Amino acid sequence: MKNFRLVPQFTPVLLGTLIVFFTLHAPLAAQSPENDVDAAFVRSIYDKSLTNGQCYPWLEHLSLNIGHRLSGSAAAEKAVQWTKSVLDTMGLDSVWLQPVMVPHWVRGEAEQVRVTGSPKSGTFDLKALALGGSVATEGKGISAEVVEVKSWEELDKLNERGIRGKIVFYNRPMDPTKIRTFEAYGGAVDQRVSGPSRAAKYGAVGVLVRSMGLAIDDYPHTGSLRYDSTYTLIPAAAISTLAAEKLSKLLKTEGKATVFMKMNCRMLPDAPSFNVIGEIRGSEYPGRVIVVGGHLDSWDVGHGAHDDGAGCTQSMDVLRILKTAGYRPRHTIRCVLFMNEENGLRGGRKYAEEAQRKNEFHLAAIESDAGGFTPRGFSFDGEESVIGKFFEKVAAHQALLEPYGLKLSRGGSGADIGPLKGMKGLLSGYSPDSQRYFDLHHTAADTFDKVNKRELELGAASMAALVYLLDKYGL
Amino acid sequence: MKNFRLVPQFTPVLLGTLIVFFTLHAPLAAQSPENDVDAAFVRSIYDKSLTNGQCYPWLEHLSLNIGHRLSGSAAAEKAVQWTKSVLDTMGLDSVWLQPVMVPHWVRGEAEQVRVTGSPKSGTFDLKALALGGSVATEGKGISAEVVEVKSWEELDKLNERGIRGKIVFYNRPMDPTKIRTFEAYGGAVDQRVSGPSRAAKYGAVGVLVRSMGLAIDDYPHTGSLRYDSTYTLIPAAAISTLAAEKLSKLLKTEGKATVFMKMNCRMLPDAPSFNVIGEIRGSEYPGRVIVVGGHLDSWDVGHGAHDDGAGCTQSMDVLRILKTAGYRPRHTIRCVLFMNEENGLRGGRKYAEEAQRKNEFHLAAIESDAGGFTPRGFSFDGEESVIGKFFEKVAAHQALLEPYGLKLSRGGSGADIGPLKGMKGLLSGYSPDSQRYFDLHHTAADTFDKVNKRELELGAASMAALVYLLDKYGL
Repeated sequence: MKNFRLVPQFTPVLLGTLIVFFTLHAPLAAQSPENDVDAAFVRSIYDKSLTNGQCYPWLEHLSLNIGHRLSGSAAAEKAVQWTKSVLDTMGLDSVWLQPVMVPHWVRGEAEQVRVTGSPKSGTFDLKALALGGSVATEGKGISAEVVEVKSWEELDKLNERGIRGKIVFYNRPMDPTKIRTFEAYGGAVDQRVSGPSRAAKYGAVGVLVRSMGLAIDDYPHTGSLRYDSTYTLIPAAAISTLAAEKLSKLLKTEGKATVFMKMNCRMLPDAPSFNVIGEIRGSEYPGRVIVVGGHLDSWDVGHGAHDDGAGCTQSMDVLRILKTAGYRPRHTIRCVLFMNEENGLRGGRKYAEEAQRKNEFHLAAIESDAGGFTPRGFSFDGEESVIGKFFEKVAAHQALLEPYGLKLSRGGSGADIGPLKGMKGLLSGYSPDSQRYFDLHHTAADTFDKVNKRELELGAASMAALVYLLDKYGL
Repeated sequence: MKNFRLVPQFTPVLLGTLIVFFTLHAPLAAQSPENDVDAAFVRSIYDKSLTNGQCYPWLEHLSLNIGHRLSGSAAAEKAVQWTKSVLDTMGLDSVWLQPVMVPHWVRGEAEQVRVTGSPKSGTFDLKALALGGSVATEGKGISAEVVEVKSWEELDKLNERGIRGKIVFYNRPMDPTKIRTFEAYGGAVDQRVSGPSRAAKYGAVGVLVRSMGLAIDDYPHTGSLRYDSTYTLIPAAAISTLAAEKLSKLLKTEGKATVFMKMNCRMLPDAPSFNVIGEIRGSEYPGRVIVVGGHLDSWDVGHGAHDDGAGCTQSMDVLRILKTAGYRPRHTIRCVLFMNEENGLRGGRKYAEEAQRKNEFHLAAIESDAGGFTPRGFSFDGEESVIGKFFEKVAAHQALLEPYGLKLSRGGSGADIGPLKGMKGLLSGYSPDSQRYFDLHHTAADTFDKVNKRELELGAASMAALVYLLDKYGL
C-alpha cells in the first residue's frame, strides 16, 4: 500500500496546538479537608451535567414540540403541563402549579409594513413585527409620511408641527462598543418602551422602532411597549436593523418616505395560567428557601430557546442534578418557572405575593434569563447587609468556582425575582457570555439549533454549584 | 385607535432584565496618569475594532470567495496573494512573501466507508473523511472485518492474532467533563495521530477513527496522521461520532461487522508556497520584533473559518487598528500568516529559520489558532526568566485588560510560533472560549456563518491590546 515515501516529519506539529490550553489554570489548591470535599462535590456536579445533563433534551422538546409560548397561548399552557410532568418524575418532595392570571395579547395576521411610492425604489416591504401589547391599525391600515429621530431631544424639537399625522421612526442603534451587550440594550430600549406614547403625545399616528439588535440583519425583534394612557394608543412595530438602515438611507437620499402599516394584533381578556414549581425540602431549615428559576413564557416567534427555555430547563436540571447526587440540602431548594416575564411579570409578582402571604423566607433567588451561553459568573443584588454576609460567608469560597470560569460580582439579578427584593434575601442573576444574545432575543432566530449543548450544561452546573455553596454556607 | 383599555402596569417589567449586568464590573480605577493613558488607548482599540473592524469582512472574503485552502492547493495560493494584497493597502512599512516548500496531499474522489452485509442493517454508509496524509486504498478498495478498541492496552492485547487482516476502529471518545475542550482533544487525538501505524504493526489493513468532536453528529473530522515508516502504510479515515456510535452498537449486537473502504487520496511532490508577512517598523527598536499571527492554510473541507481564517484576519486587523490609530510602536510589530500548520508546519519552521539566520530578536509572538470566539485570555510560554519578566513588567498592567474579560496565565502558545521557542522570546496563545471549537474543527461545518462578528472583533482588539502593552512596557 506504500506507493510513495511519506516523510515522517509531522511529529512535532500534530500535538502542537494541544499544548496551548492545558495549563491555563492550575488545579484548585486544597486548602483544607472541607475545601477538598467542596471541590469534589462541585466537580461531580459538572461531571453529571456534562455527561448526563437533561437540560438539552428538555429544551429540545420545549422548543420543537411545544415551540414559542406567549402568555395566555395554548402553547404556554402546554409548556406548563409538560414541565410539571417532568418535575413530577424527579422524586422531588413537592411539585405544584401556582395559579396566576396573565395578559393575553395576540399578534393576529402577519403585520405589513411597507414603503410605498418611492421615486427610486418603488414599493417594498420592511421586515417587521408588531411590538407586544401594540394596538392594531384601524380599518385597512394606515399610510403616512415617516419622520426619523434618534433621540428624545430630536423628537421634542420636531414637536407637534413636525410629527402630527406622521409615523415616527426611532433609529438610535445599540452601541456596539459596549462590551456587555445588555448595556447596549439598556441604552436603546427606551425607544421601544416609551417611544409609542411619546410620539402619540405629538399627534403621531404610528411608530416604527429599529430592532434592538447589534447585528445588521433582517430579523425584526419584538418586545414590550408601555403605553401612557394619557395619549392615544397608536400602533407600533419593530423593523429589522437592515430595514432600518434602508429606510434611513431612503429618507436621506429622497428627503421623504411614506409607509403603510397594517397590524391586527389585539389584547384579549386576561387568561388563567401558572407558575410551575418543584422543590426538595430542606433537612434543617425547610422554611428557608433557595430559588432557581427562569421564565416559561416567551415571545410569539422562534422557539424562545435562549429566552428563556434555556433558563427554565437549566433550573429544572439543577434540582435533578442535586437529587440524583443524593444531596440532602439543609435549606429548601425550589425551582420556579415563572409565567409572563415578557409582557406583564404577573408570575413574578404572584410568586412574591404568595411568599409574603405564607411568610416564607427566601434566603436567595437565582435567575437564569440571559441565554444558554458559556458561563462567566453571577451578579448579586440585595440589601447591603445581605450582600456583605454573602461575600463574607459564601463568596469566600469562590475559588471553588474559578476552574469553571465563574466570577462573582455585585450587580442586578432578574426580572422575575425582582419582586422578592423587599424581602431581605439575596438576589442573583446568572451571567453567561452576552455576545450572541441580542442576535436572537425576541426574534424568529431564537431557535433550538442556536443553543450549544455544552454551554447550556455548563450553565446548569454553575447554577447547581452556587446553590450548593449557598445551602452549605448559609447567610 | 383605542378599542379597549390597556392596563399600563408593565412599567417595572420592561427594564427589569436590563439591570442585571450593568454593574458586573466596576469601571477601571485610575491609578496614575499613565494608567489613564493606557486605559484610554486600550478602550480606543476596542472601539475601533467594534465599530470599524475589518477582520469580519476579510474573513467573509477568505471563506466565501476563496474557501478552504490546504497547503499546495490553488486556493492556498489565492489566499496568499489576496491577503498580501490586503496588507499592501494598509500603509505598512513592509509587506513580503516568504517562500516555503510545502507538502501537497490531495483527497481525490470522495471516500467511501460502508458497512456491508449486516444481518440486521444490511449495507449502509458511514460518514467519513480520509485522514490528511493517508495513503489510498489499493485497487477497488478493501473489505475487512472491523475490530473496535478504546485503548492502546486493548490493541496490544488483541495483538497480531486479533488484528491481522482487519480494520481497526479506534473509538475512545473525547472526555466531555473537561471544561477546556482542548484538554479533551489532547486525551483522544493520539488515536488519530498514531493509530494507523500502531494498527499496521499488528497487520491491520485499514483504520477508522472516531472523529475528534464532543457533539454526537454526522460531521467527520479530518486531521493529520503520523505514519511510522517501520510499518506498512495503511489507509485511515475518520468517521463521524454518530457513525462511530452506530458501528459500535452494531458490533455489540451482531458480534461482528465488515467494512468496505475506498479512498484515492495521495501525496504529490512538495509545492512552492509562502508565509505572508507585513510589518510596522519599530521607532526605537526596529530589530526587536513582536509577532501576531495565525495559519493561512486549512483542511480541505468547510471554509477553514474558525481554523484558522479567524486568527489570520484578526492578526491582519491588529496591524490595521494600530496603524489607523496613528500608533508608532517602539518595537517592530509584524503580522505573520503561516503556511502549512495543518500538515507539516513548514511555514512555522521556515519563519524561525529565517529569523535565526537574520539574527532577529523576537521579543514576543502571539498566535490566534483556537477559533474566533469570545476572548477569555492569553497563555504564556517561554524560558522561566522571560515569563518572570513578563509577569513583572507587562502583566502588572493586566487590570487594564480585565474589563474585556481577559486573564493572563501560564500555558502553551501555538504550533506555528513553537519553532521560535529556543530563541529566548515570549510565546503566547490567544485563548477564546473553547466550548464550540470542536464542533467545527477540521469539518465541513467550519464555515463563515459559524463566526460571530463581535466575538471575532473582540479577539482582534484583545490581541492588539496585548501587543500595545508588550510594546510599551517591553521585556
